[in-house]
Amino acid sequence: MKKYVFGIDIGGTSVKIGLFNLEGILLEKWDINTNKEENGKYILNDIYNSVIKRTPNLDEVSGYGFGVPGLVVDSKIIKCVNLGWENYDLKSIFSKLVNNTNIIIKNDANVAALGEASSGATIGYKNSVMITLGTGIGGGIIVDGKIVDGAFGAAGELGHLHVVKENGRLCNCGNQGCLETVASATGIKNKFIDLRDNSNIDSIVDEKLHLSAKVIVDAAKQGDLISEEVIESVTYYIGYACSILSVVTNPDIIVIGGGVSKAGTYLLNKIDHYFRKMMFEPVKNTRIVLAKLGNDAGIYGAASLVNK
Amino acid sequence: MKKYVFGIDIGGTSVKIGLFNLEGILLEKWDINTNKEENGKYILNDIYNSVIKRTPNLDEVSGYGFGVPGLVVDSKIIKCVNLGWENYDLKSIFSKLVNNTNIIIKNDANVAALGEASSGATIGYKNSVMITLGTGIGGGIIVDGKIVDGAFGAAGELGHLHVVKENGRLCNCGNQGCLETVASATGIKNKFIDLRDNSNIDSIVDEKLHLSAKVIVDAAKQGDLISEEVIESVTYYIGYACSILSVVTNPDIIVIGGGVSKAGTYLLNKIDHYFRKMMFEPVKNTRIVLAKLGNDAGIYGAASLVNK
Repeated sequence: MKKYVFGIDIGGTSVKIGLFNLEGILLEKWDINTNKEENGKYILNDIYNSVIKRTPNLDEVSGYGFGVPGLVVDSKIIKCVNLGWENYDLKSIFSKLVNNTNIIIKNDANVAALGEASSGATIGYKNSVMITLGTGIGGGIIVDGKIVDGAFGAAGELGHLHVVKENGRLCNCGNQGCLETVASATGIKNKFIDLRDNSNIDSIVDEKLHLSAKVIVDAAKQGDLISEEVIESVTYYIGYACSILSVVTNPDIIVIGGGVSKAGTYLLNKIDHYFRKMMFEPVKNTRIVLAKLGNDAGIYGAASLVNK
Repeated sequence: MKKYVFGIDIGGTSVKIGLFNLEGILLEKWDINTNKEENGKYILNDIYNSVIKRTPNLDEVSGYGFGVPGLVVDSKIIKCVNLGWENYDLKSIFSKLVNNTNIIIKNDANVAALGEASSGATIGYKNSVMITLGTGIGGGIIVDGKIVDGAFGAAGELGHLHVVKENGRLCNCGNQGCLETVASATGIKNKFIDLRDNSNIDSIVDEKLHLSAKVIVDAAKQGDLISEEVIESVTYYIGYACSILSVVTNPDIIVIGGGVSKAGTYLLNKIDHYFRKMMFEPVKNTRIVLAKLGNDAGIYGAASLVNK
């Protein structure tokens, strides 16, 4: 008898595994290391070994949902640069290990958006968008309760919205001026360094040894002028992205997640302020909220892919 | 026996009516005037009278699809400013007239996008976007073969993408810097006037009495410097919009329609050029093409709403 589904969120450092019942309740969660050796060829075996320890009778498992950090089309992985996977047939390999074909794979940021929609900040809304602000920026678009994958698996790649028109900083993708270059944790640090190096104003952040987005946000909250200017810039660009999204798929609700979102309502209120300055008036009831599930959004979303 | 569906595209000046068979083949099409008197209260009766003349036995009609110029949620019209309709229950009124409840209503630009997808330039693609460049700018987003309506009926309102960050021209929507202000036929004329009035260069357009987007496009094709600069600006902004769309819903194909698109491959190649400068590399196989159905896109799309 089927009792469980697994939600598996594969990251560059660790794999988060969640064991859920068929009501979508998380029963247990744990992490294993991501072994990226030899182009990630050990990752699926490691997951299998971990799964079978907790559920020796795999016949009780209804399905396995995966979130992976890369481009995915119809559960086929095009590319996961961080894991060394390219045109990697995860579904076929893993289905042989577990003797189960109810396996669905999607992009990790998309899956996190689905997690917030199924069990987090956007429960009850058919149309939502999640923007994940971390070292980079990811995103996910939910339309009528389903992830939008896109033709090339690039739907919701909101970090690569081109937002700085001229002299934008080079992005990891090779382009210039992507949202990720100005509003991710990395973008926050770079903007701070730019402003500090071109300013005569002192900053309380100077004394800190480890420059981080958190340190800069905390300094801004204390009134540090340079840090405040950084946060105005960051929230302007995220508000801008929200205004764009609100006339493309026109979500009920936009959820801000990822490490940077721990800055909380301080950040959220500024994003909302800029959104409202730029938005199309008929979308004024669009809500912008903070994510609720933190790092668990991925396993919740992955599980809900296969738990229908 | 059911033999027909109607595709009805209600505009501010005329109502286009298409009679289709159940295979989606257009059998006849015609226009009637849009009578906007008394907040558009005569429009539906006029349509009914026109419909019943061509198909006296309404039992043969399977359904009626409508495109309307305004915001629509779940076939409920929130607002059609040009027609004087607000919270107008078209479905309930028209279903009583024709004694048929298979009536679906959506935004006209969204319906045109569906028309191109079902019978025009984007046949065979599950994910597409249409940008309609006319006096204003409309748009429609197709995901998995279906129109994205959005939470407040504003999905695909691409004319209100905020694209000019500073000192943008005032848009009809009350905002500043919308795509419509810089890339519609009106935007083309305004940009031309701005450049001409601030330039010492002569333009061959000066001699023409009726300034229009077409005149400016034709002059640009002939090497008129000011007109060329206008077209570079217009195509930059449309290319920018395409780059945005390509990482939000990530369509296979983007179709450019509306009166301005009659400028043809001259315009298309420039849009494609700017798109490729700004796009996220993994979406490089996104195609940008010209619309095929012209003014008939609306009736095709409207018919396909109810012809399943």
